[in-house]
Amino acid sequence: MKIVAIISGGLDSATMLYKLLNEGNEVHALTFDYGQKHKKELKAAYILTSGLGLPHKIVNIDQIKELIQGSALTSDSINVPEGHYEEESMKATVVPNRNMIFLSLAMGYAISIGAEAVAYAAHAGDHAIYPDCREVFVDSMRVVAKLCDYKPIQILTPYLHKDKGDIVADGIKLGVPFNNTWTCYAGREKACGKCGACQERLEAFKKNNIKDPLIYEEDE
Amino acid sequence: MKIVAIISGGLDSATMLYKLLNEGNEVHALTFDYGQKHKKELKAAYILTSGLGLPHKIVNIDQIKELIQGSALTSDSINVPEGHYEEESMKATVVPNRNMIFLSLAMGYAISIGAEAVAYAAHAGDHAIYPDCREVFVDSMRVVAKLCDYKPIQILTPYLHKDKGDIVADGIKLGVPFNNTWTCYAGREKACGKCGACQERLEAFKKNNIKDPLIYEEDE
Repeated sequence: MKIVAIISGGLDSATMLYKLLNEGNEVHALTFDYGQKHKKELKAAYILTSGLGLPHKIVNIDQIKELIQGSALTSDSINVPEGHYEEESMKATVVPNRNMIFLSLAMGYAISIGAEAVAYAAHAGDHAIYPDCREVFVDSMRVVAKLCDYKPIQILTPYLHKDKGDIVADGIKLGVPFNNTWTCYAGREKACGKCGACQERLEAFKKNNIKDPLIYEEDE
Repeated sequence: MKIVAIISGGLDSATMLYKLLNEGNEVHALTFDYGQKHKKELKAAYILTSGLGLPHKIVNIDQIKELIQGSALTSDSINVPEGHYEEESMKATVVPNRNMIFLSLAMGYAISIGAEAVAYAAHAGDHAIYPDCREVFVDSMRVVAKLCDYKPIQILTPYLHKDKGDIVADGIKLGVPFNNTWTCYAGREKACGKCGACQERLEAFKKNNIKDPLIYEEDE
């Protein structure tokens, strides 16, 4: 199947990419620069797809920062919170309606190149604080995706009911180069190890009894 | 009600804007530069809202041209077709998934500023060729809009079941400055009078027995 896959440069979407390719799909990678502080994920996404020789578009939509306000991931005046994902403080990392924006652009691209599906790597760990990663949201987007063009588009979410530990397990089997994936939200040179995203990642590796190959600030 | 209104600079959304204001709403106008050839509509939108003293964001997302391909409205290599809206040739004016992209960004903005609703001016004349102006699409987007954030967002489409003639009739009552609205798709200095958008506009004024105040190329 011809698929547009939204690849952030993070561990989840990288593993999804390997999974889709392993299943024999023709994958067109798509990455957004939406003004995130953690720009390192863009470079990670580029290294990942160029290593695989895949078609990949990295599209700059950072002007949407004018609209999508109040998130610690894009606002210079809001610090990225440290702590666990389930905590209330982590709501500061919500980028309002980000996934609908990404999916709608991915669908427009899919229509343009004749792809049958778009894929994104929402997973169970996201459900607590991100409304646009929940099953009920995805189900309703699937309905819209059938109606937005002359031909229906599928939305693939292979990890919707898996947690990050399961994804790391899958990535090990698939040979994902985890050292080329970027998860930290803090936007510094090395991963902070303390933000919700880092903590969830570290726990996922621990669950699989392997060491995360990424270098963290505290490793120094 | 606090509303984000998607304003193209065209006649339909201009009339919708006047209607929403007339009903006493607090309107935040939002316009997209998506790489359309008919840039004049952006200027029209600006003149319209600045005359009313409204908050208005004109956001440049023209990098999405890399994704949203094959439309006569954005591609230099595809001519804007002349003819009537119902004709097959007018499908060249479809910008893949444009309305979902606009609505998703408008919703992100609505969440950011605490607006309860987004509004766009899809109308019955659009239904023949634009899938993302049809009721079934709008209904499914309304479901998504209830789920994409912690609080539901409404989608207002006051002209979904009206044709352009009805909208002009409404605009006359509301005092819309039609000379400050731009409809033509051809992207030239004056309106061509021949593209589907111009033809539908001219018919709408004819139906109301008034002359369109806009100057057309053939008026010269």
